[in-house]
Amino acid sequence: MKYEHIQQEAYEANMQLPKLGLVLFTFGNVSAADRSLGVFAIKPSGVPYENLSPDKMVVVDFDANVVEGTLRPSSDTKTHAVLYKYWETLGGIAHTHSTYATSWAQAQRDIPIFGTTHADHNTVDIPCAPPMHDDMIKGNYEHETGFQIMNCFNERKLDYKEVEMILVGNHAPFTWGKNADKAVYNSAVLEQIAHMAFITESINADAQRLKETLIKKHFERKHGPDSYYGQ
Amino acid sequence: MKYEHIQQEAYEANMQLPKLGLVLFTFGNVSAADRSLGVFAIKPSGVPYENLSPDKMVVVDFDANVVEGTLRPSSDTKTHAVLYKYWETLGGIAHTHSTYATSWAQAQRDIPIFGTTHADHNTVDIPCAPPMHDDMIKGNYEHETGFQIMNCFNERKLDYKEVEMILVGNHAPFTWGKNADKAVYNSAVLEQIAHMAFITESINADAQRLKETLIKKHFERKHGPDSYYGQ
Amino acid sequence: MKYEHIQQEAYEANMQLPKLGLVLFTFGNVSAADRSLGVFAIKPSGVPYENLSPDKMVVVDFDANVVEGTLRPSSDTKTHAVLYKYWETLGGIAHTHSTYATSWAQAQRDIPIFGTTHADHNTVDIPCAPPMHDDMIKGNYEHETGFQIMNCFNERKLDYKEVEMILVGNHAPFTWGKNADKAVYNSAVLEQIAHMAFITESINADAQRLKETLIKKHFERKHGPDSYYGQ
Amino acid sequence: MKYEHIQQEAYEANMQLPKLGLVLFTFGNVSAADRSLGVFAIKPSGVPYENLSPDKMVVVDFDANVVEGTLRPSSDTKTHAVLYKYWETLGGIAHTHSTYATSWAQAQRDIPIFGTTHADHNTVDIPCAPPMHDDMIKGNYEHETGFQIMNCFNERKLDYKEVEMILVGNHAPFTWGKNADKAVYNSAVLEQIAHMAFITESINADAQRLKETLIKKHFERKHGPDSYYGQ
Repeated sequence: MKYEHIQQEAYEANMQLPKLGLVLFTFGNVSAADRSLGVFAIKPSGVPYENLSPDKMVVVDFDANVVEGTLRPSSDTKTHAVLYKYWETLGGIAHTHSTYATSWAQAQRDIPIFGTTHADHNTVDIPCAPPMHDDMIKGNYEHETGFQIMNCFNERKLDYKEVEMILVGNHAPFTWGKNADKAVYNSAVLEQIAHMAFITESINADAQRLKETLIKKHFERKHGPDSYYGQ
Repeated sequence: MKYEHIQQEAYEANMQLPKLGLVLFTFGNVSAADRSLGVFAIKPSGVPYENLSPDKMVVVDFDANVVEGTLRPSSDTKTHAVLYKYWETLGGIAHTHSTYATSWAQAQRDIPIFGTTHADHNTVDIPCAPPMHDDMIKGNYEHETGFQIMNCFNERKLDYKEVEMILVGNHAPFTWGKNADKAVYNSAVLEQIAHMAFITESINADAQRLKETLIKKHFERKHGPDSYYGQ
Repeated sequence: MKYEHIQQEAYEANMQLPKLGLVLFTFGNVSAADRSLGVFAIKPSGVPYENLSPDKMVVVDFDANVVEGTLRPSSDTKTHAVLYKYWETLGGIAHTHSTYATSWAQAQRDIPIFGTTHADHNTVDIPCAPPMHDDMIKGNYEHETGFQIMNCFNERKLDYKEVEMILVGNHAPFTWGKNADKAVYNSAVLEQIAHMAFITESINADAQRLKETLIKKHFERKHGPDSYYGQ
Repeated sequence: MKYEHIQQEAYEANMQLPKLGLVLFTFGNVSAADRSLGVFAIKPSGVPYENLSPDKMVVVDFDANVVEGTLRPSSDTKTHAVLYKYWETLGGIAHTHSTYATSWAQAQRDIPIFGTTHADHNTVDIPCAPPMHDDMIKGNYEHETGFQIMNCFNERKLDYKEVEMILVGNHAPFTWGKNADKAVYNSAVLEQIAHMAFITESINADAQRLKETLIKKHFERKHGPDSYYGQ
């Protein structure tokens, strides 16, 4: 009974994915963490969304050991575990193969910051981590995926508390936040940003990145100490 | 009780945005004005559409002072206020980040008038105002956005009573009309025009603007003194 | 009471347009003819689909005179009338501004026959009639639109009984058939053909038209004397 | 009564096609085989999905002779029959004209393996079989289509047990699997892969195929002897 709150949270967040048009079949998963207990609840592997229920969410610790649940957890569980372990404020993580974000990942390109929709959420281009080295792939693949994500942030001097999304090259996006709901929100925002950036470049091959003053202004409207968006 | 009619009108118009596929989450807002009272009702900031009700609409005067309501009004309220103040026949304003119109804004291009769907509503390319100067951005940003829109119309000698839509460069579209319903209608029309113009250029990079006789004919079918569209 | 059957048929066919995603607001109209009576029923102008009912369909003769009904008929009524008058086997006509077909019309290009989906319905590229001369536009515009369509078929030696669709350059598609239902079916097929041809050229700028043997085979499967599609 | 189980299976699988957005009108068909009885149940030709019921599924043997049912079977029945006859483990086959997969077929290009979504299901580019020679088209067309598919697999040394999908050039996709449900699943996966590959190339004209280590890793996660996806 001790984990019901995160199982419920993970369940509800996972069920948002098909409603938001972010997944086909089972191509996505969301987790919700309780940091005081050092565990997170995550979607079971390969179970269709219509068959999910809160009690089917698998509870796992930050070393990816199953703590509660009879089903096998998502095959991406180790990636979630690594991110929770090292990024100490995360409360939720989402992974999808959403159409446009995944296409940018396949194209191995950062998503340029073309407008205020993007700037409302991030002050930088959405980073695309390079595909992993062969030894990482052949080894503990999902575990290494977590490090690939963190290495990209370290190399670019990005702060995971400010930039809550990444593309893994040739693979697909990961997003996160203070809880599972925010992680899913970020997946939907990323998909919309990715969609509009694709169209923007088709309309104008020389489209320019947003200028710094606008980036700053829009981000601070929503996130700075003087933010005035929302209630 | 004095403002119920515009709160109801603003509520209904805002609820059209998700139904018409023009918004993700809370990325849009509509207002409805009562010019005799010198106020308008607008969506509260950051409140999900499914949680809205007429009484939550915030009533604001044309200098953007809250007149009634406990919630904070949309972060774009000052832009609405400026437009109502100086464009004296407006009864409704809509702002969205709809996918295709926003992409043209990000590409910083006017939308060429390629066909009769466009000409049924406008006789000119849809204008894209340039991004603002840095001092305007750093200053009273949303207030200045209203002036950026009006300056663009003045420079191009456009009449806001004839052209009821604009793209703000790097940002997104604003539309307006005699009431909130018409403003939302114009947002949906703009999105469709933007979508088809994108495809048209992909099909034929040398696609030509509509010739003047056709522009004139189609606009007058719907809007001239001898219009014969509708009942 | 004498026209109820075509009013019902026209009503049902018009209501298919929003269900099939072929119209935004009122941007489309369908008519159903009774050739023995020399009249057709057509959507009233500018009335939203959700407010339609069979008795609101306006009955008009082949010279575009209103025979029954209190509402003003579609602004495109004269185009329908001309086509019924001269193409003597038509039982239904549909006009939409559907996204992809209209974009090809705006690009002023025929839609190349790229595959069997196209060949199942037509043995030729979908023709795009050129925009009209200025004197035709300034004159009896909708009446002349009918002649523009017929002239295009005459010049290209196309048979309206075999090719049941056309793009009017800079404007939008018209489709027809033995009844209103078939006309709407053709509008939906045309939109799908237009969508796939756009993607096909994006994937392969040198995509080739279907070879003649395949065109012939697929069309005859569905339409020849030895057709074996359907029941 | 003897064939009820495959009629039910074929019915349910066919009804998935419109739900998954893979067909317009009747442009698709699915069959379900009982190999012990040497027959399969398939959609009747040209019957709208909303009018289907399990008892309308036509039962046919592997030489395409109707065994049970009063309706005419799908016009593509002979293609299904040939594949069942020679590919001895197939339990279901699906054929659609889904938008993106069909567009790749019309472009006559293999779909490059650009990411892990693709690699989760196939280790190779999705093959596009060339259009048939004229004598095959003029002859027993649907029968020959089956051989065209098998010839393509033979020439490329592909195993139909591993690669469960193909594009037939200028035509459309065929997919298969251990049962009808899996065949439909593969049609949906193929459409998603086709959609993302189209966007990927638009974003980056020089997008690279996935490297071999990643192809191998992802496929083995789902399909190898040490697979760890699903329950």
